[in-house]
Amino acid sequence: MEQERNSNMKIEKGDYGYVLEDVPHLTDYIPNLNIYPNPMRFNPAYSVVKQYFIDFDDSVPEKVIVHKNDPRGVHFRRAGPRQNVYFAPDEVHACIVTCGGLCPGLNTVIGEIVCALYHMYGVTKVLGINGGYRGFYSKNTITLTPNFVNDIHKRGGTVLGSSRGGHDKSKIVDSIQDRGINQVYIIGGDGTQKGAAIIFEEIRRRGIKAVVAGIPKTIDNDITVIDRSFGFDTAVEEAQRAIDAAHVEAVSAENGIGVVKLMGRYSGFIAMYATLASRDVDLCLIPESPFYLEGEGGLLEYVEQRLKENGHMVIVVAEGAGQELVAQTNSSTAKDASGNKLLKDVGQWLSEKIKDHFATKSYTSITLKYIDPTYMIRAVPSNASDNIYCTLLAQNCVHGAMAGFTGFISGIVHGRHTYIPFSRIVDHHNKVVITDRMWARVLASTNQPSFLGPKEVIEFEKGEEEAARQLLKRESSRSSGNN
Amino acid sequence: MEQERNSNMKIEKGDYGYVLEDVPHLTDYIPNLNIYPNPMRFNPAYSVVKQYFIDFDDSVPEKVIVHKNDPRGVHFRRAGPRQNVYFAPDEVHACIVTCGGLCPGLNTVIGEIVCALYHMYGVTKVLGINGGYRGFYSKNTITLTPNFVNDIHKRGGTVLGSSRGGHDKSKIVDSIQDRGINQVYIIGGDGTQKGAAIIFEEIRRRGIKAVVAGIPKTIDNDITVIDRSFGFDTAVEEAQRAIDAAHVEAVSAENGIGVVKLMGRYSGFIAMYATLASRDVDLCLIPESPFYLEGEGGLLEYVEQRLKENGHMVIVVAEGAGQELVAQTNSSTAKDASGNKLLKDVGQWLSEKIKDHFATKSYTSITLKYIDPTYMIRAVPSNASDNIYCTLLAQNCVHGAMAGFTGFISGIVHGRHTYIPFSRIVDHHNKVVITDRMWARVLASTNQPSFLGPKEVIEFEKGEEEAARQLLKRESSRSSGNN
Amino acid sequence: MEQERNSNMKIEKGDYGYVLEDVPHLTDYIPNLNIYPNPMRFNPAYSVVKQYFIDFDDSVPEKVIVHKNDPRGVHFRRAGPRQNVYFAPDEVHACIVTCGGLCPGLNTVIGEIVCALYHMYGVTKVLGINGGYRGFYSKNTITLTPNFVNDIHKRGGTVLGSSRGGHDKSKIVDSIQDRGINQVYIIGGDGTQKGAAIIFEEIRRRGIKAVVAGIPKTIDNDITVIDRSFGFDTAVEEAQRAIDAAHVEAVSAENGIGVVKLMGRYSGFIAMYATLASRDVDLCLIPESPFYLEGEGGLLEYVEQRLKENGHMVIVVAEGAGQELVAQTNSSTAKDASGNKLLKDVGQWLSEKIKDHFATKSYTSITLKYIDPTYMIRAVPSNASDNIYCTLLAQNCVHGAMAGFTGFISGIVHGRHTYIPFSRIVDHHNKVVITDRMWARVLASTNQPSFLGPKEVIEFEKGEEEAARQLLKRESSRSSGNN
Amino acid sequence: MEQERNSNMKIEKGDYGYVLEDVPHLTDYIPNLNIYPNPMRFNPAYSVVKQYFIDFDDSVPEKVIVHKNDPRGVHFRRAGPRQNVYFAPDEVHACIVTCGGLCPGLNTVIGEIVCALYHMYGVTKVLGINGGYRGFYSKNTITLTPNFVNDIHKRGGTVLGSSRGGHDKSKIVDSIQDRGINQVYIIGGDGTQKGAAIIFEEIRRRGIKAVVAGIPKTIDNDITVIDRSFGFDTAVEEAQRAIDAAHVEAVSAENGIGVVKLMGRYSGFIAMYATLASRDVDLCLIPESPFYLEGEGGLLEYVEQRLKENGHMVIVVAEGAGQELVAQTNSSTAKDASGNKLLKDVGQWLSEKIKDHFATKSYTSITLKYIDPTYMIRAVPSNASDNIYCTLLAQNCVHGAMAGFTGFISGIVHGRHTYIPFSRIVDHHNKVVITDRMWARVLASTNQPSFLGPKEVIEFEKGEEEAARQLLKRESSRSSGNN
Repeated sequence: MEQERNSNMKIEKGDYGYVLEDVPHLTDYIPNLNIYPNPMRFNPAYSVVKQYFIDFDDSVPEKVIVHKNDPRGVHFRRAGPRQNVYFAPDEVHACIVTCGGLCPGLNTVIGEIVCALYHMYGVTKVLGINGGYRGFYSKNTITLTPNFVNDIHKRGGTVLGSSRGGHDKSKIVDSIQDRGINQVYIIGGDGTQKGAAIIFEEIRRRGIKAVVAGIPKTIDNDITVIDRSFGFDTAVEEAQRAIDAAHVEAVSAENGIGVVKLMGRYSGFIAMYATLASRDVDLCLIPESPFYLEGEGGLLEYVEQRLKENGHMVIVVAEGAGQELVAQTNSSTAKDASGNKLLKDVGQWLSEKIKDHFATKSYTSITLKYIDPTYMIRAVPSNASDNIYCTLLAQNCVHGAMAGFTGFISGIVHGRHTYIPFSRIVDHHNKVVITDRMWARVLASTNQPSFLGPKEVIEFEKGEEEAARQLLKRESSRSSGNN
Repeated sequence: MEQERNSNMKIEKGDYGYVLEDVPHLTDYIPNLNIYPNPMRFNPAYSVVKQYFIDFDDSVPEKVIVHKNDPRGVHFRRAGPRQNVYFAPDEVHACIVTCGGLCPGLNTVIGEIVCALYHMYGVTKVLGINGGYRGFYSKNTITLTPNFVNDIHKRGGTVLGSSRGGHDKSKIVDSIQDRGINQVYIIGGDGTQKGAAIIFEEIRRRGIKAVVAGIPKTIDNDITVIDRSFGFDTAVEEAQRAIDAAHVEAVSAENGIGVVKLMGRYSGFIAMYATLASRDVDLCLIPESPFYLEGEGGLLEYVEQRLKENGHMVIVVAEGAGQELVAQTNSSTAKDASGNKLLKDVGQWLSEKIKDHFATKSYTSITLKYIDPTYMIRAVPSNASDNIYCTLLAQNCVHGAMAGFTGFISGIVHGRHTYIPFSRIVDHHNKVVITDRMWARVLASTNQPSFLGPKEVIEFEKGEEEAARQLLKRESSRSSGNN
Repeated sequence: MEQERNSNMKIEKGDYGYVLEDVPHLTDYIPNLNIYPNPMRFNPAYSVVKQYFIDFDDSVPEKVIVHKNDPRGVHFRRAGPRQNVYFAPDEVHACIVTCGGLCPGLNTVIGEIVCALYHMYGVTKVLGINGGYRGFYSKNTITLTPNFVNDIHKRGGTVLGSSRGGHDKSKIVDSIQDRGINQVYIIGGDGTQKGAAIIFEEIRRRGIKAVVAGIPKTIDNDITVIDRSFGFDTAVEEAQRAIDAAHVEAVSAENGIGVVKLMGRYSGFIAMYATLASRDVDLCLIPESPFYLEGEGGLLEYVEQRLKENGHMVIVVAEGAGQELVAQTNSSTAKDASGNKLLKDVGQWLSEKIKDHFATKSYTSITLKYIDPTYMIRAVPSNASDNIYCTLLAQNCVHGAMAGFTGFISGIVHGRHTYIPFSRIVDHHNKVVITDRMWARVLASTNQPSFLGPKEVIEFEKGEEEAARQLLKRESSRSSGNN
Repeated sequence: MEQERNSNMKIEKGDYGYVLEDVPHLTDYIPNLNIYPNPMRFNPAYSVVKQYFIDFDDSVPEKVIVHKNDPRGVHFRRAGPRQNVYFAPDEVHACIVTCGGLCPGLNTVIGEIVCALYHMYGVTKVLGINGGYRGFYSKNTITLTPNFVNDIHKRGGTVLGSSRGGHDKSKIVDSIQDRGINQVYIIGGDGTQKGAAIIFEEIRRRGIKAVVAGIPKTIDNDITVIDRSFGFDTAVEEAQRAIDAAHVEAVSAENGIGVVKLMGRYSGFIAMYATLASRDVDLCLIPESPFYLEGEGGLLEYVEQRLKENGHMVIVVAEGAGQELVAQTNSSTAKDASGNKLLKDVGQWLSEKIKDHFATKSYTSITLKYIDPTYMIRAVPSNASDNIYCTLLAQNCVHGAMAGFTGFISGIVHGRHTYIPFSRIVDHHNKVVITDRMWARVLASTNQPSFLGPKEVIEFEKGEEEAARQLLKRESSRSSGNN
């Protein structure tokens, strides 16, 4: 993998340790392509704009916390319109596909790609692929026009439909080739972008003049390098409702406990940010931070103590937290009628563990309410901040495609839009660094124990060492900056 | 001014053109101060955190769009907790003051300063100054505790009250000295931070061991250097309601026009972002972009044309837009009964101009609805994103003060929290650069004319040249990144 | 008028003082009409419903506060589907028109009339008249289908467009006759229903087989007889935002005053209900309750006293309040440059009066913020409660039209849907009875003075006697019941 | 039961079949009580109010759909202030208790009882019982003042806390007697009001001068006689969010199914109203309407057909729907590790049944998302409409208690506030009458089958005959009127 990645990497070096990790370009594998002046030069809205076009050399550093004698380090190519493009408007045949779970902003991204192609570049052939990757070969396409997408940013979900799986590389590329599609916009999460990378490689292998551009989508916000993924802001906002409800339920009962499960399969960003924004949370559990239930310093002891002090508590748990504990319980004991392992979600599992614990204590009866707002969060329309972010992502993605770049995603790095090669983001989940300050803020806000003695810290770090070290080094920042 | 600023600037240089624009420190004017270990070292929430404390050399570049052979340029000191502090917890006597108009997030900032002082540093003497600067000498103070601020982040406004004006430097510093206050947290806009700079200078002149730390507040988002000011996100979100209402009114009438006035005295950021987020706006007017009503290429012609095409239109106008035009009308013609000049707000003025114009056209009757949502926007509680941002601003401000820095504001630069000297932000309004791409996006979204012919562009640029050049050079980015 | 009304009234009497005030019917002026079985008899959704059809004799009393020996009094015909109808489905050619200002729920009513006609009665010819009454003769119509109206209830405004005025009776009835329309659904306020009554009379005069059915629309909720008008609930809900903002602005300033103007040209129901729901209001001014500014017991004295006690206050003023006072000020003093009388709205007028008053008091400076949320309230989509109410109004209106009733409005009386003759509601504004208990509740909640000494009560009542007497007698209840 | 009820009923008769079902009064069992003039007579807010006091004879009919020769039927006593009261203000010692699950509006009711006692009657001793009935004897009380309750109506939940169960009649009445409490306000559901009836009987038995007044609370809206219970409106509104999310999830997937579980243990009012308000629902399941899964005309067949037609569907299911079916499945097959029956909620059960069904169909793969918004609905603050309703309920409850009435609940009947004897509402759940028109509306809106063939209708009606007959006779109307 590392080797493959390296073989495809385009590296350029500059003064004082400057490194540019560039993205592929059509000209890498097709010689003598025609160049056209960017049609935006003739667009009245842009005609007054000085410096509208990106300087070819513009780049953005991966690292912005620097010391006075540091070398300059890795940079990414700045996104934006170029003076010249590699497609004539009437030659372009674009398609858009959305894959994976819902995320606020999908419709805005779709709409803005369509509008950018139409209004900025005069492109008029844009197809929507219906129902995710497999729609390439199993379904009819949808004709996308500015009129069709006019109001869709005010609705949740995706007008194109979505699905999981379905990466039949050959069939997809066959369909692209057969339909004469030459710009492929792919919106989806990690698996989807991995698929996009494979599609890009196949297209390159076949020597087709078609660009593949991705817009990473994950409500969990666990994509490396970029500041944040679209929809994350909206999700954290919407999660407040669930936490508020859990808090009201908890304070209105004697020994009331409100448990809220939030998204986050491998990383706890939503749980962490929602906890910080709310301030009503007494315990935040995330996949990155192991915990244990029983005994001194355990979760149940903390719950008991918190109830004694406050009479109520609110727990936020990311869906991927404590998976080893949940697995233990299930594998050993519970089966359903058909003999299948009963997989419980961690929120229900935790709720039952807490209830069971207090059921044995005759002196304390608790009232626990469990809330799973997942689909109510995913399905809302994006808020204003995400709408603007999606607009810029989409426009920049189109600018990059028109300029002949390919095999890239459009993403924001330190507030600047950039093009990042697929290889940099695929298979690298960003995680909450629990030995970093943002997580310490959560601990300070909730007053929860770290569930780690000094010894465990060391052991924990041994296991996580490499990842943690990498991440700290990269200081992969999250939306509001984590320092 | 420039000279004074330079005389106070602390500049440090490094390799390859690295410049650090540092903030003042108590030790600049008081020798032999005691140093204490940071109490957070003994806080269980932080004990597991590696690298919790900021490396003394950490800094953040002002500029992140770079070329491969660029020198490294200006940097700011990274914000965050230091290994050692210059105050013992029981020695600290802090005060907080809020000045100027309301802005979502004020209460969150207040609450988080209090909580950071109490929970992170063990400080227990925190005063609230009542009703802005003049509360220092004319009012009783409010005792601030974590319990008092517990829920205030869910409410709009400021629990400390606010007022405009009242910088009686001597009386304020007398009050600080008399009460034994040694940490002054000042939350307010440009005028307020100018006052803070003066207070800081007076304190330094008197040789008092007291730090002055600012958190810039402006709903208009027009503070230079920093990515965005708190409350801006919430304001743009809330502005959507007004634009939606204007849109509904417009489409439900024949030749319906909805006019929404938004905040922005000197800069049009809210109007610009609200327009981009909504996509329902046909004309966005901001202070930075001159326009004219009559004649070819004028606003009224555009309105006529738009109504003919669409049957309705939505106009967003920043309060500071077209002030010269409004002034002309008023000075020459209208007075009220007492002979006072009738100052109209630009929204009403524009609405009347449009109505008057169509009143003369017998063939078109219009229905115009004017909405001024200003106070309904300012007064809402901050959203989740602003809550988290306010939390980090407040904590970092406290970290800086405890570490003995003074004369600084806490602000985010390229997603990283930094300390910036007062001199860098006071008297430098950030403005929408109308020859930049973000404004071009608005023009593209609304299809409105630029109101500038090629000749005007050149003339306009002559006048604005210096500012524009500075800003472009600094690429002072706004919240979602403007490239 | 009274005579005309009486001549058209259909009165039926029963035992123990029972009176039925019936609505007109096609058979009143067209003999020998065909009768058809109601198609709902064959609809699977209704086939299991026993007693689905309304008993011919069902009626609803106007008065439900009774004494043990009271006679039974006036009743209205109960709304709902009849066993038989006077139109064959394929014979029906319906049209819908919306007139006057926006009100939440207009789109729901439109959509539900269309769906009821299609799905319940199998009707497939439904036209939308574009842009109010004058659309009958000056515009193209819109074809309305269930698909077209599918999602419109989630949007504010009216998809048909609206306008004021334009009752050219002859042209409208000509258009109805020429197009072969035989069911006319008219949604609008008092003026509109007056127009509907005239259209109905003309249709009867010409002997056309066409029914005219109205759904009264007024956000002010001032229609007599019925419990409440649609959209009122939503409006009161939405008004809370403005009052909350005014409250936040007021408490955040020294001597802060927040003034909110709400709808209510002739009646103060929205102001009254919004005040009761909020509890943050210190003064509520409505058209029905006179007040004065200066002197003992005057408004300004109360404001001074309230600021002294609380440091802030919130004022809610209905747009029609204090019109005589506003008129006095304007007529005598202020003109604009062109010599036109400067008509101020009462909110601005009051705000200036209060500011002027305190400007003369050197010892108290106030901060007053004025909010006019009118269009932001009118333009929102209807809430769930209004959606359901609109659904029932629309369905019952269709049931009545199919059953051959005409010259009626569909309205709710004591929670029961009824048909009421036009003559009963036109020209009879409902008003807040300020000598009744609901208003006393407001006074108790705000602690405001009544602005009436005992003498004024008597005088006031002389003037208002008749109206008040009528209303008390009828105990025309408002949405939540006013006893 | 019927006998006991009758023995306690106070029946008064009038002309033409008039019957008054009166509520108990202190004078029923304590002779020679002092009478005092109502202190409101001297309250400036009320001094201008004519007819403020309720006429002793005012009553409200249970039935408002009448025929011209009907007898007058049952009436309830009208609520409101009386000229004279049976408590001197300084004699009153009131307490308030909230029991059972959360419901929007609880805090408003609490606050308004406190304010009515203080501001209208000059009472200053009001206790809050902490944590439901058992708080009477196991907890400290909370002192309730207007200041304490000032803002609580803006928060969800109950500031008094709540719990289930705990009717130890003797201990409760001992506590009432020992503390000298003479007004007991009890807010809670069916079980709670049953408890209130028992407490009232015990107080009467002991001959204590203490009134017991209830305010019925059930988010399910299944209390007989009254128009609607508080919080219901808010719940239906809030339920829209969940349905919207389910709809977005469903339309964004191929064969997407969104399932929403709503409250309603014995009655489907929330499900029914939320379905009607939304119009996006394809299937609404309620406890009153039996259904079956398999075979012709079954639920699964309908789901298949709907997916084939539309590609997606939304299902709303009340928690009490299909309980017999759920019970069958569970008892026969599934156990957990400890051998306990796995009780599934109907939403999960239904979701699994549908998934299992399609798992066997290789040709159709579905995506089902299940949403349970229960706690997110219960915990929101009440909306404006419910706030006003709660205010009137609370004030009228206080008026009744001060006037010496006891053993009653305060409730709205046909838009009029009344006092209803406990015996009339306890043990009589209101239910959706599935052979009535409101349910037919749902069927018409969703197009779902009735799951009843003609034969089943007859059989179903045999079982439900008595209940249905009673209800139809009483035409127990729900909030917006069901005719």
